[in-house]
Amino acid sequence: MKDDPSVAIVGAGAVGSYYGAKLARAGVDVRFLFRSSFAAVRDNGLTVRQKEGDDFHLDAKAYQDAAEIGTVDLVIIALKTTANDAMVEMVRPLVGEDTLILTLQNGIGNVETLTAAFGKEQVLGGLCFVCINRIEPHIIENYLAGSVVVAEAFGEPQERTRQVAELFTRAGVDCKVAPSLAEALWKKLCWNVPFNGLAIAAGGVPTDVIMQSPELKRLARLLMDEVVDAASRIGVTIPNYFLEKQFSVTEKMGAYRPSSMIDYCEGRAVEVESIWGEALRQGQKAGAPMLRLEALYLLIKHLCEKKS
Amino acid sequence: MKDDPSVAIVGAGAVGSYYGAKLARAGVDVRFLFRSSFAAVRDNGLTVRQKEGDDFHLDAKAYQDAAEIGTVDLVIIALKTTANDAMVEMVRPLVGEDTLILTLQNGIGNVETLTAAFGKEQVLGGLCFVCINRIEPHIIENYLAGSVVVAEAFGEPQERTRQVAELFTRAGVDCKVAPSLAEALWKKLCWNVPFNGLAIAAGGVPTDVIMQSPELKRLARLLMDEVVDAASRIGVTIPNYFLEKQFSVTEKMGAYRPSSMIDYCEGRAVEVESIWGEALRQGQKAGAPMLRLEALYLLIKHLCEKKS
Repeated sequence: MKDDPSVAIVGAGAVGSYYGAKLARAGVDVRFLFRSSFAAVRDNGLTVRQKEGDDFHLDAKAYQDAAEIGTVDLVIIALKTTANDAMVEMVRPLVGEDTLILTLQNGIGNVETLTAAFGKEQVLGGLCFVCINRIEPHIIENYLAGSVVVAEAFGEPQERTRQVAELFTRAGVDCKVAPSLAEALWKKLCWNVPFNGLAIAAGGVPTDVIMQSPELKRLARLLMDEVVDAASRIGVTIPNYFLEKQFSVTEKMGAYRPSSMIDYCEGRAVEVESIWGEALRQGQKAGAPMLRLEALYLLIKHLCEKKS
Repeated sequence: MKDDPSVAIVGAGAVGSYYGAKLARAGVDVRFLFRSSFAAVRDNGLTVRQKEGDDFHLDAKAYQDAAEIGTVDLVIIALKTTANDAMVEMVRPLVGEDTLILTLQNGIGNVETLTAAFGKEQVLGGLCFVCINRIEPHIIENYLAGSVVVAEAFGEPQERTRQVAELFTRAGVDCKVAPSLAEALWKKLCWNVPFNGLAIAAGGVPTDVIMQSPELKRLARLLMDEVVDAASRIGVTIPNYFLEKQFSVTEKMGAYRPSSMIDYCEGRAVEVESIWGEALRQGQKAGAPMLRLEALYLLIKHLCEKKS
């Protein structure tokens, strides 16, 4: 990748707008592809408010049409996975022969969709551990600086993986290279599958309700064990202390509202397939029964479709 | 059993009051053990309104204390299974050496509790397929004549099984002797586990919501398959056409509200253990994994405890 790459942000919601704005402020040529919030950003630019101070405003380069942006060196995808059916066609005009595509989307299955269309050579994956909200179409609030992890879609980190991480670091984002994307994603699923899932299934409750219910806490652990079993069949080993830690960390989070539960309660589309659906499919394909997850997935899918 | 037995009704809610009243009207010596509705029945007697007409009033023999009733020839238990912890002590004063005990309670595990206390020789089990509501403490409404099935707790029907059935028949109740209580109970679980269960888990919905949701309908069938697997390991064979029939019958029921779902929605105790808990425990003990049921059970148990 070039030292001074052009970047396109696809799916410029809270996460995409936030990282795009930070990169742009650091001098990177960032072009934002907006859908519903295009006009608001074109007229007002992007405002970023950060918990640790250092608020800033950016005259963001806002686009509505990927063809107008043209090919770039790096595409960063932060699209909600419920829009994944349209993702490949949305991204295609941005992708040239040497374009790297980095998906920071939730859950699993995203790099598979992208590599099927663009080949393994051009795709990277990443995860964000962060807390960001878009309070107006052009105003982003960040509550936790957090961190980003980037990795090759498949296989070990390369020089370009480190270059992408370096780009984030230059923009003031804590960014690390992960040795295995699958490991990072399945570890995140260890929390998201049970806690986002039961928060919805129990009627839209915060995580302290799960932690205080002997039944839900036990079910959370059983679901986590199913994720670990599936991961191990896919080649990812997740140690027991990591699971224990998920519970001790969640205990301290109090009445935390997982993002999927908020989406559910507010009637927005929930990323059911990229979290529960794909975990189930990939796990079962690898020979893990995942029957408790199957029950949870079918129930959540019904609940979320009924509501949205 | 004597031709003209004395009968005690334990747990005189809707079902117990209804059958007790019909037996008493037919000339049987029936003594009702009431809890909360004792005073209302003592002062007003029992009124039974039947869908098919033939309403009647009974000066019921109402008691508050089983010791006052003393031993009888036949104890009929229609107690809600959520009160099973207290059942044996409640019944004990009624049971002599030759007393038969017939439980008409929901779900499974009830004959096991009774035989552990009183021995296999004295216990029979039964099922009611009926629709009855208690609209006042002393007024019972019957919407569907339905039928009763009686069977030995364990093993094949005996002369006394037929005598008990004959008693119901004499009172105008359609009553059959079942060759196997376990078979009758597990067949009923094929419907109750998925449909009562998902009606609660999906937030308190009628059965048409389950039938119209591809996800819930699929989960209902998967749960039913788990019940069938458990039953087969216990020695009960449930044929596939029986399962298909559960769906075609439910299809015709429209927006039916299962009794457990009504209990759940109205904040009353739900018979979680005798339906889902005991099915899970007996199934797992017989080597059936029942992992989807486990997930459903843990979720329902949380939901019902939270509410009640």
